[in-house]
Amino acid sequence: MKALVYRAPEQIEVAEVPKPRIEKPTDAIVRVTTAAICGSDLHIYHGALFGAEGLILGHEFAGVVEEIGSAVEGFTIGQRVFVEAGLRCLVCEACKRQLPLCPNGGIFGTATPWGTLQGGQAEFVRVPFAQRIMHPIADHLADEDVILLTDNMVTGYCAAEWGNIQPGDTVVVYGCGVVGLCAQVAARLFGAGRIFAVDRLPYRLEMAKKVGSIPIDASSEDPPTRVRQETGLFGAPVVIEAVGARATLEMAFQSVRPGGTVSVVGVFTEDATLPMTMFSLFNVTIRTGLATGQCLPRLLAMVENGELDLKFVFSHSLPLSEGARAYRLFDKREEEALKVLLKP
Amino acid sequence: MKALVYRAPEQIEVAEVPKPRIEKPTDAIVRVTTAAICGSDLHIYHGALFGAEGLILGHEFAGVVEEIGSAVEGFTIGQRVFVEAGLRCLVCEACKRQLPLCPNGGIFGTATPWGTLQGGQAEFVRVPFAQRIMHPIADHLADEDVILLTDNMVTGYCAAEWGNIQPGDTVVVYGCGVVGLCAQVAARLFGAGRIFAVDRLPYRLEMAKKVGSIPIDASSEDPPTRVRQETGLFGAPVVIEAVGARATLEMAFQSVRPGGTVSVVGVFTEDATLPMTMFSLFNVTIRTGLATGQCLPRLLAMVENGELDLKFVFSHSLPLSEGARAYRLFDKREEEALKVLLKP
Amino acid sequence: MKALVYRAPEQIEVAEVPKPRIEKPTDAIVRVTTAAICGSDLHIYHGALFGAEGLILGHEFAGVVEEIGSAVEGFTIGQRVFVEAGLRCLVCEACKRQLPLCPNGGIFGTATPWGTLQGGQAEFVRVPFAQRIMHPIADHLADEDVILLTDNMVTGYCAAEWGNIQPGDTVVVYGCGVVGLCAQVAARLFGAGRIFAVDRLPYRLEMAKKVGSIPIDASSEDPPTRVRQETGLFGAPVVIEAVGARATLEMAFQSVRPGGTVSVVGVFTEDATLPMTMFSLFNVTIRTGLATGQCLPRLLAMVENGELDLKFVFSHSLPLSEGARAYRLFDKREEEALKVLLKP
Amino acid sequence: MKALVYRAPEQIEVAEVPKPRIEKPTDAIVRVTTAAICGSDLHIYHGALFGAEGLILGHEFAGVVEEIGSAVEGFTIGQRVFVEAGLRCLVCEACKRQLPLCPNGGIFGTATPWGTLQGGQAEFVRVPFAQRIMHPIADHLADEDVILLTDNMVTGYCAAEWGNIQPGDTVVVYGCGVVGLCAQVAARLFGAGRIFAVDRLPYRLEMAKKVGSIPIDASSEDPPTRVRQETGLFGAPVVIEAVGARATLEMAFQSVRPGGTVSVVGVFTEDATLPMTMFSLFNVTIRTGLATGQCLPRLLAMVENGELDLKFVFSHSLPLSEGARAYRLFDKREEEALKVLLKP
Repeated sequence: MKALVYRAPEQIEVAEVPKPRIEKPTDAIVRVTTAAICGSDLHIYHGALFGAEGLILGHEFAGVVEEIGSAVEGFTIGQRVFVEAGLRCLVCEACKRQLPLCPNGGIFGTATPWGTLQGGQAEFVRVPFAQRIMHPIADHLADEDVILLTDNMVTGYCAAEWGNIQPGDTVVVYGCGVVGLCAQVAARLFGAGRIFAVDRLPYRLEMAKKVGSIPIDASSEDPPTRVRQETGLFGAPVVIEAVGARATLEMAFQSVRPGGTVSVVGVFTEDATLPMTMFSLFNVTIRTGLATGQCLPRLLAMVENGELDLKFVFSHSLPLSEGARAYRLFDKREEEALKVLLKP
Repeated sequence: MKALVYRAPEQIEVAEVPKPRIEKPTDAIVRVTTAAICGSDLHIYHGALFGAEGLILGHEFAGVVEEIGSAVEGFTIGQRVFVEAGLRCLVCEACKRQLPLCPNGGIFGTATPWGTLQGGQAEFVRVPFAQRIMHPIADHLADEDVILLTDNMVTGYCAAEWGNIQPGDTVVVYGCGVVGLCAQVAARLFGAGRIFAVDRLPYRLEMAKKVGSIPIDASSEDPPTRVRQETGLFGAPVVIEAVGARATLEMAFQSVRPGGTVSVVGVFTEDATLPMTMFSLFNVTIRTGLATGQCLPRLLAMVENGELDLKFVFSHSLPLSEGARAYRLFDKREEEALKVLLKP
Repeated sequence: MKALVYRAPEQIEVAEVPKPRIEKPTDAIVRVTTAAICGSDLHIYHGALFGAEGLILGHEFAGVVEEIGSAVEGFTIGQRVFVEAGLRCLVCEACKRQLPLCPNGGIFGTATPWGTLQGGQAEFVRVPFAQRIMHPIADHLADEDVILLTDNMVTGYCAAEWGNIQPGDTVVVYGCGVVGLCAQVAARLFGAGRIFAVDRLPYRLEMAKKVGSIPIDASSEDPPTRVRQETGLFGAPVVIEAVGARATLEMAFQSVRPGGTVSVVGVFTEDATLPMTMFSLFNVTIRTGLATGQCLPRLLAMVENGELDLKFVFSHSLPLSEGARAYRLFDKREEEALKVLLKP
Repeated sequence: MKALVYRAPEQIEVAEVPKPRIEKPTDAIVRVTTAAICGSDLHIYHGALFGAEGLILGHEFAGVVEEIGSAVEGFTIGQRVFVEAGLRCLVCEACKRQLPLCPNGGIFGTATPWGTLQGGQAEFVRVPFAQRIMHPIADHLADEDVILLTDNMVTGYCAAEWGNIQPGDTVVVYGCGVVGLCAQVAARLFGAGRIFAVDRLPYRLEMAKKVGSIPIDASSEDPPTRVRQETGLFGAPVVIEAVGARATLEMAFQSVRPGGTVSVVGVFTEDATLPMTMFSLFNVTIRTGLATGQCLPRLLAMVENGELDLKFVFSHSLPLSEGARAYRLFDKREEEALKVLLKP
């Protein structure tokens, strides 16, 4: 089959690789109809993941059930599904204690010391623990309606939930990429009052306006200064970092009010300074980490009954064969790229 | 009256100053019978507080009601009381929104841009909002039974509460000063399993053992390494920083398990590095700040009915006239100093 | 001065009574410009309160500061204010332990074994602890903009908050009186999905539709049956009782799904049956009680910046001299009465 | 094989029945070495469960893995295990939304409209979803060390957790059966101060004293009256009902203080009166339901490292062949029966 394979930093290619097969009775094989590129894929693309050579990329995908293991109940061949980006076995010691680092789990399209889990930017993908992480797509929905539920919207929802938003709260979101936009949409779901959205790219700030946020252009003003002006000098009760960079996180810390929360969902490749001289007097809560999927059924129900429409984020839809170009334009933010889809 | 006054870095003296008087109907005057030196007093002692010249030090004290404003009900002249270290007006815009930085509030023995609130290491002290922050001392209790409720034990309790300790949880406490020891006692109240207590001073580690903690001597082993060995390599679910130093906070970050909480109650004069490359994958919660006093009635009830005895921490009791010596030995940790009392 | 005085069940009259005066330095006197009748006033009107003879009614009012005690800071004579319906001293043993039954507190227009607190359906009213419970009215707002913040909207907000509403949740509200309508508005603030509103009066169901709820007419269908049909037979995750009657509470219990919450803010004069044969298997949380005022600054900010407009509930505005007629039409629900104002 | 089978109310017998076999790849077969009788088994014994004729009783058991389905990983034939009393599929619509009533789940030894799940008071038992609900028993532990973790101690822990116990809180537990005693032990783990334990049987009150509770003999004094005397008339902040009877629940309601919580873990066959005339003014939270198993790994760790020893509750250990007698003496509370074990 065809798959998008990582070779070396910024070198990826569509290659012919063996089609995956059922390895355990809890597996399924899915024929991918739509995959998407995530900001965290770019970390691998740039060479940040040790041992990634030969890896099939991608953890956001939807498709059709091709084959089912003997222990997977409730699914039929040919059924349309989307798949959660990550998986946990639920039965190992780590999972029983609700810790990450499940040795039987992982994220599609990544490699860890425990093993490699091939990704979904391919014609087919093997899905372990399929019964748990595959979700049927209702007939009236397209792949595009649900593909953000594999990762980005779940992450945006966690960002808002961790922020402990109360009705009317001012919320500041650093980053107007897809996760940042999803966090803004989610903040609204939690009853936020004003939402300030920070970015440097005009087309992304334009998107933020479309979802009802007030844009702050970091290329022309200092975001923390603006936030303090808008909030009686105290800062905002909830600040979300959805970029994954030292500079934006440090601005987030300068934007939160005493007693407030900074919710960090960006994935980082650098550390940051924690302003303890300020925070040891200011009662701040910081929450970090990867999204957990408890909110997925709730979000899926909202999509199914028309209360949540996220399709505005798709800027490009390209054939899988153009995967290398897709990564390049997403990475360089060319052509006003926001969310880029790949169609195998 | 006599009072312990700050002159310059490491220069303090007992001086004759005017006796305070009622300024507002909500004030009271307290004749101090016991005051205590807090670790955060040392920041002022070392010159960290701008504009402190002439300040009467001290925010931990107990005494006898000397005079009462016309709007203070329920107290009588001669009644024994202890007083909370800090106060808030409850009615300004900041207080109504439950933010710090109340312009009418403050901490005894500190100066802010809004004004100075003279401290209690003196013969007398003016207590604003007296009805709210003065607490009667039961007849069967000594000043020593309750003086830690002015600050240190309240802080230790907050440290444990912010950690979200669940029964059986392993807890690591960085620091075996009085706040660190109080945090260890409080962690036990919340049902902690093993409590590891980190310090470098043998006599303080000895105290930690007395309250049931397992000592880790940071001068002879690496605390995060030891914590990981003891916790199946994951780290501890709850880590408390009760020192207020960059080095210990960074060790705290290395000691917490994924999904865990770092509770920071030390007061800092330096910033620290937040290991986002690790924490952006590890779902950690960090909580910082000054203690809030909601737990005080609960702690006082435990002291009153004999369930909580904190008197083991007092190492020295000196006359107020020896205040300068008291600060010096507490600062230098001479004579196995732990909690030092001053008797006006 | 003139005041609306309770004499006997369903016998109230506007009478000449002594004008109140400052009794303590923490008091203020307010000249009432607008008062409102609350559903709980009707309990007194019907004779449910022992010892109410001679009581001035009313706990919802706004007005102008007429006189200020010596310990009340930050207010000026002539300033427009509204006043919280209830008060607590914050310093007695009950308040320090955050219990109700403060012997120095109470609710305006009620009598308790500890004493009587005269109400605000009068030309003037004495306001104890004035600094804490009086709130300035911004110049651009009318009394009508804020008078629901004295009680009804605070209660509606608590009803929604206690329900632990998560984004997209289906919410059922029993009762479309003012508190029920406020609870529906509040549920929307917390991100509710569909909101079902139950009542028997067509004009109240019409109001529920205006705030975006789906009406259920209890006179023509069985509400729990309808709720189960709409929720896949499980019932709703959040059910609010805003009536205060046995029949509606028991329907609320039949409408909640396993794992859900029933939030009860109605004031009851009869007990109800708790269906333990069902609930002991179904993991339900029930919350009851009177609203607490923590949300008030948040709600006031939303009103001030135009995010919350509750004026649609006012059906009548009558002079205080017609107080008896006002109670009668509110009690009998004549003339499509919803919220009735009295203007002294 | 031999199994204890329900025939009719109070008629049970040890009968020869077919040995169970693997039906799905996720099943295991366990050879039972120890089973226990639970208070809720008595409901079935008395005929409360429709369609129970022919049912093998029992949901508390430990044993040895006899056979393993092809999708069950991490267990070996001959391994010692205990099994959670109930199970959920985790993948149906109910489970994905975290609702009870999973059509693929159930409780061992019960029958529902969806089907029957044979129990463990037998020589062998089929365990569905074995990988999720079977737990290895450490070599240094006996069956008796862990068998309460199948149900009773998990229930007692939930009772305490739902009560939201804060350090020093007075807790009242209605019932000194095994669940009541477990709740008392758990309340201590959460930092409770005084724990009052209510029962009518002297030997059970004696057991309560052994775990550090203060006994209240309901046959000689009125428990709510006593509780109010002990708590300054306010009542207790946390009250646990561990009996499952109308009378004790109504006493529990009279024992809780305003602002407190009543946690109900008894299984009921009758409804009760909810005192809304009191509770609508008193801000009470009531929580009901069946225990959820999240605390199990935490409790197991405490048992494994010697911090939790529950073996004091075992009053009888009888061969399975004497099952009928065992039920009778447990039901009649003869011979000071507390927890009765059956050994196949």
